[in-house]
Amino acid sequence: MFLVEGNKIIREMLNSSFKIKEIFSIDLEDLDVEYTETISVSAAELKKISFLQHPKNSLALCEIPLEKPFQELKQQIILDGIQDPGNLGTIIRLADWFGIEQIICSEDTADCFNPKVLMASMGSFLRVKIYYKNLELYLSETKNENIGTDMQGENIYDFKFPKNFNLILGNEGNGMRPKTLENLHKKITIPRFGKSKSTESLNVSMATGIILGQIFAQK
Amino acid sequence: MFLVEGNKIIREMLNSSFKIKEIFSIDLEDLDVEYTETISVSAAELKKISFLQHPKNSLALCEIPLEKPFQELKQQIILDGIQDPGNLGTIIRLADWFGIEQIICSEDTADCFNPKVLMASMGSFLRVKIYYKNLELYLSETKNENIGTDMQGENIYDFKFPKNFNLILGNEGNGMRPKTLENLHKKITIPRFGKSKSTESLNVSMATGIILGQIFAQK
Repeated sequence: MFLVEGNKIIREMLNSSFKIKEIFSIDLEDLDVEYTETISVSAAELKKISFLQHPKNSLALCEIPLEKPFQELKQQIILDGIQDPGNLGTIIRLADWFGIEQIICSEDTADCFNPKVLMASMGSFLRVKIYYKNLELYLSETKNENIGTDMQGENIYDFKFPKNFNLILGNEGNGMRPKTLENLHKKITIPRFGKSKSTESLNVSMATGIILGQIFAQK
Repeated sequence: MFLVEGNKIIREMLNSSFKIKEIFSIDLEDLDVEYTETISVSAAELKKISFLQHPKNSLALCEIPLEKPFQELKQQIILDGIQDPGNLGTIIRLADWFGIEQIICSEDTADCFNPKVLMASMGSFLRVKIYYKNLELYLSETKNENIGTDMQGENIYDFKFPKNFNLILGNEGNGMRPKTLENLHKKITIPRFGKSKSTESLNVSMATGIILGQIFAQK
């Protein structure tokens, strides 16, 4: 099971293939959905079951769907050990925005049904398929080109993105693990234009957004 | 006065024009700086003065510098009512990355010396100049082209960015205020490539990153 919070996402879920088990709400009129398993609760009761510091009006208990058989798509995002739920959620939202329909995560990447991930994804988890896989095995078998970000890669503004690719992003602190690096076909870099010599790199979700923006600029 | 937390940023500040008043640290050896006003404290004492749930080893009390006389630069970011400290900090970091040296904020934009802003900016606030101004007045007088994001603007991948511009971003929920909209010369849009008809737009700091990425792609 997993939990989603807020009227908007609950309405979106009722129009999706995901299954809601129970809805709890402090304001059924405002929620305005026809669903038999909807339970009116007090604000104090809702606060006890919510993961939020300031709960919204409603939350829903939902079923984690059965994993569908995996099929490789021509454009995928691969995440190698992303730990921060906010980053994972933001990357799911970016994938949805740019029409990347599938994300493959290493087994140690944050859980995509974590409430913070779902919140940051703003409903995009309903549309983007997410799989957890042994990356070493998968990246050695894929038919797509494995493209990873690296400090010493090719400038993304000169790089010609292939039609079929896996865009690979690594862990927030440590980057990709060595076995992932070994499976890369190409390395790319977002150039820094500022004068600063600071070594602070861009946040991984921001890097994902800028790279996806550039891939779609070339189309 | 304002507060910065962590050895790394304290060392960066000692090499900048910003003035530190006092440093408090639980581990002077690890901090490893030569500064007379450095005070050894216990972890419990540091926790009392820190804004962080999990304080770092050191923090420094710093002087807010006197505002320098304003000079318009050829490429600026303008923020109209950005409320979230994380967004402001991330935009400061992006400006630093892309070499935009100046940000002009409406008077109701979040305070750039807020600890959460400083934390999210990762030290970039040392290099990017930030001014708070009456935007209605400023935008009517600027010599740069005022370019704002809008749902119905020109596609950023077709738009030719001028040499001299103010890139204007609006409030997280409400966008730009009407007086700002009136002063725009051009409107731009980040196109959505996904199939989703959801109206959820990109987060303002992500939009800033993708637009700056595209501006520098044209160089």
